[in-house]
Amino acid sequence: MARPLGPVRMRRTNYVTLFIGAVLCLFIIYFLSQSGSSTGSHSSAHKHRPARPAPKSTVQHIRRDVQRFNLNQVTITGDPVANREKILILTPMARFYQDYWDNLMKLNYPHELITLGFILPKNKEGNAATSALQAAITKAQKGPAKERFRRVIIERQDFEPPLSSQDESERHKLQNQKERRASMSRARNSLLFTTLGPDTSWVLWLDADIVETPRTLIQDLASHDKPVVVPNCFQRYTGDDGKDAERAYDFNSWQDSVTAQEMAAKMGNDDLLLEGYAELPTYRTLMAYMEMEDPTDTRAEVPLDGVGGTALMVRAEVHRDGAMFPPFPFYHLIETEGFAKMAKRLGYQSTGLPNYKVRVSREQSQSSVLNLNRH
Amino acid sequence: MARPLGPVRMRRTNYVTLFIGAVLCLFIIYFLSQSGSSTGSHSSAHKHRPARPAPKSTVQHIRRDVQRFNLNQVTITGDPVANREKILILTPMARFYQDYWDNLMKLNYPHELITLGFILPKNKEGNAATSALQAAITKAQKGPAKERFRRVIIERQDFEPPLSSQDESERHKLQNQKERRASMSRARNSLLFTTLGPDTSWVLWLDADIVETPRTLIQDLASHDKPVVVPNCFQRYTGDDGKDAERAYDFNSWQDSVTAQEMAAKMGNDDLLLEGYAELPTYRTLMAYMEMEDPTDTRAEVPLDGVGGTALMVRAEVHRDGAMFPPFPFYHLIETEGFAKMAKRLGYQSTGLPNYKVRVSREQSQSSVLNLNRH
Repeated sequence: MARPLGPVRMRRTNYVTLFIGAVLCLFIIYFLSQSGSSTGSHSSAHKHRPARPAPKSTVQHIRRDVQRFNLNQVTITGDPVANREKILILTPMARFYQDYWDNLMKLNYPHELITLGFILPKNKEGNAATSALQAAITKAQKGPAKERFRRVIIERQDFEPPLSSQDESERHKLQNQKERRASMSRARNSLLFTTLGPDTSWVLWLDADIVETPRTLIQDLASHDKPVVVPNCFQRYTGDDGKDAERAYDFNSWQDSVTAQEMAAKMGNDDLLLEGYAELPTYRTLMAYMEMEDPTDTRAEVPLDGVGGTALMVRAEVHRDGAMFPPFPFYHLIETEGFAKMAKRLGYQSTGLPNYKVRVSREQSQSSVLNLNRH
Repeated sequence: MARPLGPVRMRRTNYVTLFIGAVLCLFIIYFLSQSGSSTGSHSSAHKHRPARPAPKSTVQHIRRDVQRFNLNQVTITGDPVANREKILILTPMARFYQDYWDNLMKLNYPHELITLGFILPKNKEGNAATSALQAAITKAQKGPAKERFRRVIIERQDFEPPLSSQDESERHKLQNQKERRASMSRARNSLLFTTLGPDTSWVLWLDADIVETPRTLIQDLASHDKPVVVPNCFQRYTGDDGKDAERAYDFNSWQDSVTAQEMAAKMGNDDLLLEGYAELPTYRTLMAYMEMEDPTDTRAEVPLDGVGGTALMVRAEVHRDGAMFPPFPFYHLIETEGFAKMAKRLGYQSTGLPNYKVRVSREQSQSSVLNLNRH
């Protein structure tokens, strides 16, 4: 009696079972792909994979919590895109410039190979900058995949004196420079020591008020394949005649002079030989004022003894070997200028690109004193 | 006609549906818990959690790929266990000593708060050490939960000269010291710069041949709450009379002397003032030979101007501020001794614990020259 209905019942049960089975399969596939992609989107330094034989890779994952890196296989070359080299962009930030962020987003080095590191002071100005920065980051990381960065690290720290609350004229006073730049050095070191990974190839120091660079900044700087390379920093402004003009801005990139060396020889261990002060005429050759034979040759190189930090590209091995930003007078130099000297002591020569320009924000006021230090 | 069977058919379908529904639920719960636990077992620096309001925490997870750290809220105190402070133990390793590993495993600081970092040379000796080390690590990380470390990072790097292939007598020759210790400095810096995290509180440098320390080493050293603290390193040996004895081993921990300062003043910038060589009688006061009023007082402290690296506890902020191991003569000092000078330039005084002993392997041969440098 039940027979005629048998097949019907079976068929009905089959539909329900099939439907639930399909849902089940979809769920399993969804969760598997989720756990897969969450692994995949980790920075590779923190990727967790079961042990696998990959002797030629930079990193081997012995277990989730054990990683092995071959530092000699971290390539650092003039063609970082082709070699999928990982870049760390580091920015000490006292104020958030939207133009800085917009310019950063436009860099066409693959964002998935870029880690961003920021350090901001713990004060009112720093809080406001952190909020604005975080909003910008969240938007970028939720946006199209190709805009998303590999990882972003935001650090907050108290500094004494704070990174940038003095006004420009106060900030440039010779007697304030030592403390101010020691503070900035500590900030740079804190950021560097805690974000550099075993698989980082290049570190790009980029100041928070740099608002205009070529989109190919990273590729261009890396293509020189130098241990330390620094472009020339300018500022656009409106002249008295109402026309747009630009002026030199960063005076920390220079070649040493005999006069400066003689001055240094007479100084005490704790004295600083700062650049850009009338009280200390060093006669160093400033990259800001160098005139090259062919001003259109953006690849022109000059050797430097001091470098500025507005945009500063460093092979990771230079930092790994120990080059940091001395917060104390090091051969009478401090911060980025001291860094160039330290790199030199480690065997690395700094290179300047006088015709390759980056630009600081117009909002950043420049004192009326012409030959003024950047910091 | 179909009626009587209706309920039966419904009941049957229900069983199947319920069963499949239960399986589905179990799968969902399983995968959810999986993705949860994989997140939970990450080191906290790399933990990925949705945004949450936790202003008082050291780290905030804005998104999976965005972390915010408050460096001022990383506590570094004399009671690190109570404050759940994260420790980074760093070991440059040329040879694997089972006794080193056994001693490390016995340290009773909570292992889940300890990250281990190793750097090994890329040579035959280094390969053998890496294999042995990896086997030991894998065993520990698969073992009981309380034995597992938070994270382990193994780095391989070529060094020139290699870290430790010279025999002991060759190694100690004055003319080999500069290169050898420059190489060791670069290894220490590479390891430090790439493993220090924003949430590390203390760094313990522990040489690969240290085989005997109190189980409470980390707590004991931290309890002094000093920026840089170093115990005294000895070696057990069998005397000519067949009895067990011990001798001083590390001569890099010292207090400066007027003689040494005068010698340094006459030296060129690139000259080193090494300790423990008859050619260079410095008359520095060596911690190895200090006699304290009460030899049983393991908490006795002395200020030091040079430190050894056999076991060296450093507050993370000292490194974050920029203190590294100079691979070049820094005030005529190099490596760990140069580090002490650099810490001093940054405002941090080193402290020695003359009566607190750690011991180097018996297998490590000691030259017949009594006053011999550790490295």
